Amino acid sequence: MGVQFELEDTKFLVRDLISVQALDRGFFGSDYEGKKTVLELAPEEALYLLDVRNAECRRKNRVVSFNQAASGFKDRPKFLARYFCYRDWRDRGLIARSMNEAEGTYGRSPVVKYPSQEFECPKALFKAVYFSDDLMSIVDAEEAKILYEENWFGQWGTYKAKKHGRLLKLDAYETLFLLKHGGLKLNVKEARLVKEAVKRRSDFMALYDVYEDLRLRGFVLKTGLKFGTHFRLYFPGAKPVLGQEEWMHSKHVIHVFPREAKMLISEWARAIRVAHGVKKTFILAIPGVRKEAAAELDFLLYHRKKGEIETPKEDKPKYVMLALSEEEEIGGAELAQALSKAKQLGLDLILSICDRETSVTHYRVKRIELPKSKYEYYEIEWVQP
Amino acid sequence: MGVQFELEDTKFLVRDLISVQALDRGFFGSDYEGKKTVLELAPEEALYLLDVRNAECRRKNRVVSFNQAASGFKDRPKFLARYFCYRDWRDRGLIARSMNEAEGTYGRSPVVKYPSQEFECPKALFKAVYFSDDLMSIVDAEEAKILYEENWFGQWGTYKAKKHGRLLKLDAYETLFLLKHGGLKLNVKEARLVKEAVKRRSDFMALYDVYEDLRLRGFVLKTGLKFGTHFRLYFPGAKPVLGQEEWMHSKHVIHVFPREAKMLISEWARAIRVAHGVKKTFILAIPGVRKEAAAELDFLLYHRKKGEIETPKEDKPKYVMLALSEEEEIGGAELAQALSKAKQLGLDLILSICDRETSVTHYRVKRIELPKSKYEYYEIEWVQP
Repeated sequence: MGVQFELEDTKFLVRDLISVQALDRGFFGSDYEGKKTVLELAPEEALYLLDVRNAECRRKNRVVSFNQAASGFKDRPKFLARYFCYRDWRDRGLIARSMNEAEGTYGRSPVVKYPSQEFECPKALFKAVYFSDDLMSIVDAEEAKILYEENWFGQWGTYKAKKHGRLLKLDAYETLFLLKHGGLKLNVKEARLVKEAVKRRSDFMALYDVYEDLRLRGFVLKTGLKFGTHFRLYFPGAKPVLGQEEWMHSKHVIHVFPREAKMLISEWARAIRVAHGVKKTFILAIPGVRKEAAAELDFLLYHRKKGEIETPKEDKPKYVMLALSEEEEIGGAELAQALSKAKQLGLDLILSICDRETSVTHYRVKRIELPKSKYEYYEIEWVQP
Repeated sequence: MGVQFELEDTKFLVRDLISVQALDRGFFGSDYEGKKTVLELAPEEALYLLDVRNAECRRKNRVVSFNQAASGFKDRPKFLARYFCYRDWRDRGLIARSMNEAEGTYGRSPVVKYPSQEFECPKALFKAVYFSDDLMSIVDAEEAKILYEENWFGQWGTYKAKKHGRLLKLDAYETLFLLKHGGLKLNVKEARLVKEAVKRRSDFMALYDVYEDLRLRGFVLKTGLKFGTHFRLYFPGAKPVLGQEEWMHSKHVIHVFPREAKMLISEWARAIRVAHGVKKTFILAIPGVRKEAAAELDFLLYHRKKGEIETPKEDKPKYVMLALSEEEEIGGAELAQALSKAKQLGLDLILSICDRETSVTHYRVKRIELPKSKYEYYEIEWVQP
């Protein structure tokens, strides 16, 4: 026989003393109206106890089922997603508590530091022909090879075989960058290039902004198609050479999430999956200026410490959870806002995604510190807490 | 010294006899105006010879560069994508020829046969509560467990741990299916469920149509979130049991591409990548009724035969190529049309995707034969020809 509690209006209250003590020891519920002898359970706590802990809930002395207890919440936004994400954390033997208990700054959100260096764009005084439908330009001057060899702009010859072929191919981001910073001579004007590229893909300028921001800090960005992302990233100094007879492999990939964009969680999870599958670090880039947006975080998460688990009694929370469901849409601005709230709390964000089978996947988000960069960058990693 | 040819208006003509013979042996060009002594080169052939075969092109006796030769085509749709895809095929030592040479039906497009069986939907006369924002319903009657155990509807207990928890969770596709075919009792009407789901994701009905079509042939479909797709698929007879102490693994995943949808090639390639990474067969489902759409196929492809390559002299083409670029959008109807044209030719379609670095990836598309199903299904596989 599990614990017992009551449903009064939409509140779950524990008045049975043995149940109060058992739940308090298990870090469920909080004092009700200042009384230590009565506990109020949050809906997800009550449902968890009903679902997997064999608890009994009564309303006016009649036993109610899970659905009877849950029905009052059936129109609440992502009610089940929150519940299943909470459940998953508890099922791992870990504690999750309400956001109401958050206080001050916990200082448990270490930043990841990336190197950054001044970049002086090489002179690119070549004539290039832009193929508008292909969003690509070609330079057929032999001297342009140096742009590829020294700064890894474009592709000389053939991918992974630069001696095969005698042209420099620049993609639209490289073309625009060299037009603005290197004096490239092009058959189309900047405004027309941008206009046509935006017609093709509406997020073109967001991708370009990230490309430019990182290129100006010395990073090298190339297409990430093979890894399912917008760019792959090389740290300052990277060149397209065979170091020790081996091709230089990127270790990071970048996904650009414009603030005004909306994306299905499932599509977003897919991008992280590919990166994980090919053992790359997934970087989320949020270009543009900060905007206000609604974002509620869901739970304070306690994790593990040497051989035991962290508890609200002895420890500070380690992470803060944003619970999401597979078929939900998230906006760039909304995600940025959630990340900013987590930063204020001094906690890393855990994005927990509940799929249609109620299986939950967790992603940890770490802030990247990148001197002089204009935008926000985060590493996102799949974790099994 | 490579071959020599001339640019006359926008035609590339080979008049030099030694060049004509060399190119004819290499399967470049075609007879010009019925004359065997003059060859006309397609633009991609001419550019290929200039780019990697050290050829010389003259206009009015003056040598022209690659860009001078290519400039006349710079506003043609996907001109470079076609060129780089052609180049990739030739660089593999294989022959690609113009679509003009296509004749009749080649009978080289074997279908993949899938099993199919009659499905009788079990009675599901349970009361379920639908949580509208979560697109999910819950049944808290113990007897509902049989829907999970026998037909793998929903999730009983916990994912991969059915004894943990005592609820049946149904996603929106399962809920709607059981509402229509199994008599499920729900707190919302079908029309409202559909309306709310469509508001959440506009392709909801396309996904449901595929779900229903395949469920009625005996297949089991569950979420594909972990594999970056809409569904994972089990063949008729699958149950959520540990066969030989092992969890039953799906081998197929399904991506639904509605005819009216448009998708960036890069997003689409990402979905195939994840499936490949986890060693699943990727199935493309195109629901709905056939519509006319524009679709031009690009090249007839010759491949390999025992120890040698196929040639237009001795063999029939093996595949037909649709050349695409990373940042291009493709519509569902357009892709369906290309597939239908390939079917008429009796050839498997090869989708060749040129990325921003001019590296080309090839995907082979095979038609699936699935008795009594209403829609079109294709297996798509990453190949290295």
